[in-house]
Amino acid sequence: MSLDAYRSFLTELAEKSGDFLVPFFTDPELIVETKSDDSPVTAADCGAEQLMRDLIAARFPDHGVIGEEFPDKNAGAEWVWVLDPIDGTKSFITGVPLWGTLIALLHNGQPVLGAIHQPVLGQLMIGDGNVTTLNGDPVRVRACDAIETATFLTSDPLNPAKYQNGGAYAALIARARLVRTWGDCYGYLLLASGRADVMCDPVMNPWDIAALVPIVRGAGGVITDWQGGDAMRGVSIVATGPGLHAGVIAALNAK
Amino acid sequence: MSLDAYRSFLTELAEKSGDFLVPFFTDPELIVETKSDDSPVTAADCGAEQLMRDLIAARFPDHGVIGEEFPDKNAGAEWVWVLDPIDGTKSFITGVPLWGTLIALLHNGQPVLGAIHQPVLGQLMIGDGNVTTLNGDPVRVRACDAIETATFLTSDPLNPAKYQNGGAYAALIARARLVRTWGDCYGYLLLASGRADVMCDPVMNPWDIAALVPIVRGAGGVITDWQGGDAMRGVSIVATGPGLHAGVIAALNAK
Repeated sequence: MSLDAYRSFLTELAEKSGDFLVPFFTDPELIVETKSDDSPVTAADCGAEQLMRDLIAARFPDHGVIGEEFPDKNAGAEWVWVLDPIDGTKSFITGVPLWGTLIALLHNGQPVLGAIHQPVLGQLMIGDGNVTTLNGDPVRVRACDAIETATFLTSDPLNPAKYQNGGAYAALIARARLVRTWGDCYGYLLLASGRADVMCDPVMNPWDIAALVPIVRGAGGVITDWQGGDAMRGVSIVATGPGLHAGVIAALNAK
Repeated sequence: MSLDAYRSFLTELAEKSGDFLVPFFTDPELIVETKSDDSPVTAADCGAEQLMRDLIAARFPDHGVIGEEFPDKNAGAEWVWVLDPIDGTKSFITGVPLWGTLIALLHNGQPVLGAIHQPVLGQLMIGDGNVTTLNGDPVRVRACDAIETATFLTSDPLNPAKYQNGGAYAALIARARLVRTWGDCYGYLLLASGRADVMCDPVMNPWDIAALVPIVRGAGGVITDWQGGDAMRGVSIVATGPGLHAGVIAALNAK
């Protein structure tokens, strides 16, 4: 099976889960639960993941599935789908359309396809590590060589002291030209389409990372963990264009 | 002339300026200039304001107009329109749909109608000090009595030290449950529709304030400047539901 067929199936997953999710987002009566770890979750989240799991099971019964809401299925398979129906649940429940659906396809444990889908805005970004497209058009990171001229995005920048090497993180943020919490997956979409220069997340869940790797690399960007190591091994993400990455990693790890 | 007729004209201004603005927002070739004060501005901004000025001049030639991009016209008139075509220009040029168009109508210097229009999302909020609607449906601020349970929004929270009484501002932000830069006019839309609990802006331009006052009050909220005084006199804004306002003002002005 070629990657092109999987790409078309990925698009189907994004479109069908998006059609399911949007009515929940626009419903002012949205019922919000709170999980024990205090991250908000809704019927939308579970329903969209189940919908995608059912589509995968019907089409590719041998494939594995890893998702946030349900137990792993056949996680050691050659092909494994990684699903996060609502990345940015705080944005979702606040009525801010900067959340999205993350879908990745792993081959022997490595992400070979990734998607960020924002169904309210009708934006579907797909990357394969070589090329990244937004609604079918190729996109690239933009040139930026100095943090002082950078648009710096993060999902939650405040109280940097609570994160690893927080003092260095706070000092880096203070140098950036513009800092905003246009974060979660939408921050990576902005980075990969040349609208921002740095996207940092000090804390990540494994199911949030896999889709971002082929997207950022396909757009010509660099994506690692907080120490500059393999993003897939980590619990944190630093994504930038090639001109900024070394400086950002050095600044984040300054003693 | 009754306020209802002005309300219908305000809706026309919002819809026509929105139709003009959206193609600029979705155009990846958007040309961005930088003004001397470093706020980004585009042909979109000037074009939308001119479009609204022309509509007002044709329909209400005696009315005054105050806008960001052009000199005041007849600013002492009984009826004056206050226009900000793109409130949130940094969001606009970054590709984030949290900017909006602000339109206010002053009667003898006091705002009697205000609108926040987000044309990409198709959201038009109108307030008259008594009632606030979102796409025609009445909205209200939500109940919240403690900053520790509040969703706290601001346009630019970082480096609070650069703002008035910055240490107290930083301490207040650190107490909030969730803090995000889902700011500019969209933050007030979220507050007035019960999706957030506090919206603070330490620095405001006069043309940004007038529309917010009848919107926040019409939704049952409280809007003042940073010291708890008349919002219209000031250069800063604190808007909350009634249960939080006194505590937020006290905290911001703590010695």
